[in-house]
Amino acid sequence: MTISSVDNKARSKAIRVLRRKFGELAKNIVEGRKPVLILPKRVLSNTIYDVRRKLLLLGPEMQKRNLLDVNEARKFMQTLLMASIIYDALINNEYPTIRDLYYRGKHTIIFRDQKGRLHHENTWDEQRESDAVIRDIEVYLGLLREEMLILSKEKGKVVGNLVIRSGNDIIDLSRMGHGAYSIEPTPDLIEFKDVDAEYVLVVEKDAVFQQLHRYGFWKKQKAILITSAGQPDRATRRFVRRLNEELKLPVYILSDSDPYGWYIYSVFKIGSITLSYESERLATPNAKFIGVMMTDVFGSDIIRDKISRIRVRDVETITPRKLKSLPPKKPYLSERERRNFIIKAKPKDVERAVELVGYEVADACLDNKEMRDRIRRKKEGLSGYPWFRTPPWIRELCIFFKTLAKLEIEAMASKGLKFLADEYIPSKIETGDWID
Amino acid sequence: MTISSVDNKARSKAIRVLRRKFGELAKNIVEGRKPVLILPKRVLSNTIYDVRRKLLLLGPEMQKRNLLDVNEARKFMQTLLMASIIYDALINNEYPTIRDLYYRGKHTIIFRDQKGRLHHENTWDEQRESDAVIRDIEVYLGLLREEMLILSKEKGKVVGNLVIRSGNDIIDLSRMGHGAYSIEPTPDLIEFKDVDAEYVLVVEKDAVFQQLHRYGFWKKQKAILITSAGQPDRATRRFVRRLNEELKLPVYILSDSDPYGWYIYSVFKIGSITLSYESERLATPNAKFIGVMMTDVFGSDIIRDKISRIRVRDVETITPRKLKSLPPKKPYLSERERRNFIIKAKPKDVERAVELVGYEVADACLDNKEMRDRIRRKKEGLSGYPWFRTPPWIRELCIFFKTLAKLEIEAMASKGLKFLADEYIPSKIETGDWID
Repeated sequence: MTISSVDNKARSKAIRVLRRKFGELAKNIVEGRKPVLILPKRVLSNTIYDVRRKLLLLGPEMQKRNLLDVNEARKFMQTLLMASIIYDALINNEYPTIRDLYYRGKHTIIFRDQKGRLHHENTWDEQRESDAVIRDIEVYLGLLREEMLILSKEKGKVVGNLVIRSGNDIIDLSRMGHGAYSIEPTPDLIEFKDVDAEYVLVVEKDAVFQQLHRYGFWKKQKAILITSAGQPDRATRRFVRRLNEELKLPVYILSDSDPYGWYIYSVFKIGSITLSYESERLATPNAKFIGVMMTDVFGSDIIRDKISRIRVRDVETITPRKLKSLPPKKPYLSERERRNFIIKAKPKDVERAVELVGYEVADACLDNKEMRDRIRRKKEGLSGYPWFRTPPWIRELCIFFKTLAKLEIEAMASKGLKFLADEYIPSKIETGDWID
Repeated sequence: MTISSVDNKARSKAIRVLRRKFGELAKNIVEGRKPVLILPKRVLSNTIYDVRRKLLLLGPEMQKRNLLDVNEARKFMQTLLMASIIYDALINNEYPTIRDLYYRGKHTIIFRDQKGRLHHENTWDEQRESDAVIRDIEVYLGLLREEMLILSKEKGKVVGNLVIRSGNDIIDLSRMGHGAYSIEPTPDLIEFKDVDAEYVLVVEKDAVFQQLHRYGFWKKQKAILITSAGQPDRATRRFVRRLNEELKLPVYILSDSDPYGWYIYSVFKIGSITLSYESERLATPNAKFIGVMMTDVFGSDIIRDKISRIRVRDVETITPRKLKSLPPKKPYLSERERRNFIIKAKPKDVERAVELVGYEVADACLDNKEMRDRIRRKKEGLSGYPWFRTPPWIRELCIFFKTLAKLEIEAMASKGLKFLADEYIPSKIETGDWID
């Protein structure tokens, strides 16, 4: 037998849900009601940040797709076309990718209107369009595409004292040699069999993952070591979430100290702002940012003069007093190391940082006049994401704006892999030196 | 024990070679000779294509780096600085990345000249500079950086009936569930223990790899299935080469039918033109291009009228008669499928294709006048790579120029995964429908 039983089970479930939800629609038509699809609105204005659960969620707004409305007919038909392609793939034991689905549905419909004029209408022109239709179907069915056995490329890797069952195999992730286990694109089908680990360390960069793995980090520290190899994909996020939720393992994220790295953390923890409906399943709300922190590099003293100028009104008002009451931090790097390891931030980096933490912090902390003017011109009043508007993040970002410095994880590894693996990471975890 | 014995052995060997080669230099200095490094020139003009062995090789030209020559002193010092950093990493049981090495060596030297003026000189400014120094050291020592335990990120994955030893573990690559084995960054340290496979299929795209894997392709076909996830990295190339050389497995490359896909094939088979010194170890000269072929999509008839206009003088002169004597081919796709699956080539694609196969073919086959003028203006007389100037490749590229069409592997998968896995690939292998 080549196809695993979990796949067959997933297939049956997806077929059932598709039949039920679209069967309702068919029934409506047969009984003379209008063919209408009703599904949650997937737009930013209907995206809600749930402060208590630390999750991005879809709000209560719904949208209708009526076949008999000229403005909605195209979308209605696209949705039904895609659903039927997915259904066919499921019953034919296929494993399509979103690219396949785009191709399978792509064709030109040629028809004559009432006046006899010939028209050419493409089902969709670009994959962006068919991808949006797939997302609508996910939301409509309440199924992630992975649950419909739609596959995708997958970058995430893992090693550690964890035994899993995937497909028909039992796999010991502590026996991967110098290589690693590539996470499957459908991580919900993984069964956790046995674990002996104290935490999960997710490293943004594959090359740093390779170093830590080779050095035996996860054996010494009893960690499960994961890399997302850059911006995390859905499967890696879901896998991390399951380790946290089901195995109760704390999750620490190690990324570069720059807006790109902070955003990666944010995607793991909260979700992607444009795909909020996934985050209920894919995000890990209690993931912790362990570094590289700006305060690890510069210490907290460097922005003493700035703090009294920052005031942020948000979920809770952040006052200079609150910022001053954060525990002070000493830098891990010497002045000389810092000088050699720093990368100068580009205007684009500064703009992205404003998008994360909001305008007030940038305006209060930027010493560089040119940059301050630029931000005032382009980003004045921008409010940032609530989960970055907390005292520790404001302190981090304020240092970034003041120094205009970025740092890579490799800067810490350059002090010696020993330093990174045996001192920096373990001591930060032990002393609770992270941002929640 | 966390560090594997193969690592310790590799470490000792690299230390020995570094000591010997740089020891000679030290001896020269002690004995009053000039401090000079002599190493092969790593430039295009010293790159030779060995037609018989189908390999890019460094030619016989050597370059000198003399410390006492103002023009060469900087490069000389950079080389010694980098060699000492690599040496330190080796004896300290480290696993640096090329990014680390850049950081470790990066600092500013402050000195006064004879007239007492102060100077600031950076060891290097960008990683491009330190990477070039590492390549010089590889060439000078005759060691690949992997043999000095310099790690890098790694995208390659594998599954199949192959048992390997990596580090201290024995790993059965047929027991990876729905996931896969991530190849280690130092594939020379892998030991092949057992194999039961008839060929190696390398798929350019990770998503297609996922599909074929999930479908059980490698079990049914007794194949070892690999993906390079785009442009292949060094470890994936070396791993494929070893499977071919040591296990005598034929290697077939499946890529998109476009200049990017053809170049990926070329990197696997011949090597990267700017890094020719690696190809003796990393290239797989008898790798075969299995598809997606332009002739699979359009058949060979489509350019009947063009063939009589093509004449290419090269290693062997290619005449219309030779082109006409190629076996004719029928398309796998219907007219309708073709229409839906084709992607229009951009001017940039056409230019890249000219760089591969040379100007004459493009000029003879392009029907699009605008594009022909553009190529004449920008690429007239360009001669392409010898390994693409063979009758079957000229036929492929001629169809590309005529149709200005690109096709992805997914186009074949969209006809059904069954078609791709059970018909297209096996029948092409069986009938020898590939390009060598």
